[in-house]
Amino acid sequence: MPSTNQVILNAPLDMHLHLRDGEMLDNIVNGSAHTFSGAIIMPNLVPPVTTKEAVIAYKERIMHAIGDEKFTPYMTLFFKPSYDKAFLESVRDDITALKLYPAGITTNSEGGVSGFDVEELRPALSAMSELNLPLCVHGETNGFVMDREAEFVSIYEELAAAFPDLKIIMEHITTKESVAALDKFKNLYATITIHHLLITLDDVAGGMLQPHLFCKPIAKRPEDREALLKVALAAHPKVMFGSDSAPHPKHAKESCGCAAGVFTAPVALQLLTELFEKNDASLENLQAFVSGNAQHIYGVTPLSKTVTLEKKPFKIPSDYNGVVPMYANEEIAYSIQEVKNG
Amino acid sequence: MPSTNQVILNAPLDMHLHLRDGEMLDNIVNGSAHTFSGAIIMPNLVPPVTTKEAVIAYKERIMHAIGDEKFTPYMTLFFKPSYDKAFLESVRDDITALKLYPAGITTNSEGGVSGFDVEELRPALSAMSELNLPLCVHGETNGFVMDREAEFVSIYEELAAAFPDLKIIMEHITTKESVAALDKFKNLYATITIHHLLITLDDVAGGMLQPHLFCKPIAKRPEDREALLKVALAAHPKVMFGSDSAPHPKHAKESCGCAAGVFTAPVALQLLTELFEKNDASLENLQAFVSGNAQHIYGVTPLSKTVTLEKKPFKIPSDYNGVVPMYANEEIAYSIQEVKNG
Repeated sequence: MPSTNQVILNAPLDMHLHLRDGEMLDNIVNGSAHTFSGAIIMPNLVPPVTTKEAVIAYKERIMHAIGDEKFTPYMTLFFKPSYDKAFLESVRDDITALKLYPAGITTNSEGGVSGFDVEELRPALSAMSELNLPLCVHGETNGFVMDREAEFVSIYEELAAAFPDLKIIMEHITTKESVAALDKFKNLYATITIHHLLITLDDVAGGMLQPHLFCKPIAKRPEDREALLKVALAAHPKVMFGSDSAPHPKHAKESCGCAAGVFTAPVALQLLTELFEKNDASLENLQAFVSGNAQHIYGVTPLSKTVTLEKKPFKIPSDYNGVVPMYANEEIAYSIQEVKNG
Repeated sequence: MPSTNQVILNAPLDMHLHLRDGEMLDNIVNGSAHTFSGAIIMPNLVPPVTTKEAVIAYKERIMHAIGDEKFTPYMTLFFKPSYDKAFLESVRDDITALKLYPAGITTNSEGGVSGFDVEELRPALSAMSELNLPLCVHGETNGFVMDREAEFVSIYEELAAAFPDLKIIMEHITTKESVAALDKFKNLYATITIHHLLITLDDVAGGMLQPHLFCKPIAKRPEDREALLKVALAAHPKVMFGSDSAPHPKHAKESCGCAAGVFTAPVALQLLTELFEKNDASLENLQAFVSGNAQHIYGVTPLSKTVTLEKKPFKIPSDYNGVVPMYANEEIAYSIQEVKNG
């Protein structure tokens, strides 16, 4: 993308978003709802979202918190192997996907899947396949922190082979191994965050320790970031932007035993635009990465929204309603100039 | 070491210790001076210790802070390539070693060495070799955080080959690559910390982020820890205990942008005893690792001190004069029962 004074993005989508609940939801939701047309909403509340009633009620709380902004929360259900076809049919129209967490792997994932026995998972995953419900997966083993995702790739491949018509989204991928898996199975897709395109473990722990850049999966090696950048900047048709924006209160990030998660939603489009320009990628690819690919993969038609960014220095605030964003107090090259709905 | 009610250690030595200065020195020095006979004192103050006068004055401040405890601070000089033989001769009796920091690699190392040109270093290192002054080295490049030490091994090997009579101590080693280098050159030695024998990166960043376990070099992979454990538990004659105990005020550890360093001095002997017992290593090897090997390598004869540990649960305090130790508030198996001087 040549240096430009203005960049116009149509209907940006965030295909992996944590909106939380209660006061935190109220505090952060419009950081997403203002600039994005819609987002895939993660179901790892306490307790997780596992019933039709819980999905509907959570969506209502989100819509209430949003107020006047135009935004579609694409709801998800917290995957459990015990779901049967009748249940999934009953909830089909209320959700866009299901999210699978290995048990205990990240924030509020205690009720997730232990072991990945294909036969145990077959009834639920076959039903999802028939109902064209994608499976979003947090793909990490409980191994050594730098190996967890690469170790999980064989599970992705086993699931992809066993359920060839099930769309499997490898969420927030961070490694060259996951990138390589994309082209091995037609039904494997991926989301990539902005922070994993920008940082490596060096930024988290190479100088001083930076709690606001600490997340799961943890940022990996330079060659991993290069592999992610390559498919994102090229808008590989199987990758989509998903922020994994994950707000925590300031005290939970800046204390002994800091929680995992980077809060990027309100600055994601500005950072993405800067990144694509800096790497000389086309505006067309940026548009595909932040919206077009997701529309094709999920078969969704987002609300019409036009976001105009201008090349004008933007000092990222120290916090948004008490939540510290990525690169707080730093200056970046692009600002949001205007958002038009409809 | 079979399970035992009592372990007696003679003249424990800590061959890598940060005592800091001023109020911090006063607050923490006796956490070392009470249980150790002596320690190699790091010179990375602000400004670093680079003159005879500074060495003497720092030693006096340490002795004053110690009060009645019996303890030898083995002083070091902050290495600079510009030192000549006349200067090193003049300071020979005041120091035990020199410490080389690559520029900017850790806390207060801004004045260190940039580039490792053997010919540039030859005058100073040849003089040290002739004066039998060991060179202690913080061996990290400025590369990716998980690779910095392994990348530095070729520099260790180049220096060891170029100055075959210079004793080179690879400080606080954390990788299997450094362990392997030990047996390649007769003049390469190493210190190992207690925390690198106990933790990997998983403990720092695998669950919640743990600032009190964040240090430089950062804790590495499980196979690296295994390699360190193997030579420490066997009391390989070229390895010595060096805590790298590095106190920072609580607020500097528990804030955004946390400083690197683990504070272990007051709990090191208890943790080492527990570790050797748990791994069924002999008391003889523990004695060699915490004193005997260092006496041979450095040619020092420590003050006589007998430390008796008993197998009795010890709850590590939440802090020592405001400095949070490793494993604060956790219970370990051994306590200090008695310390006898003389």
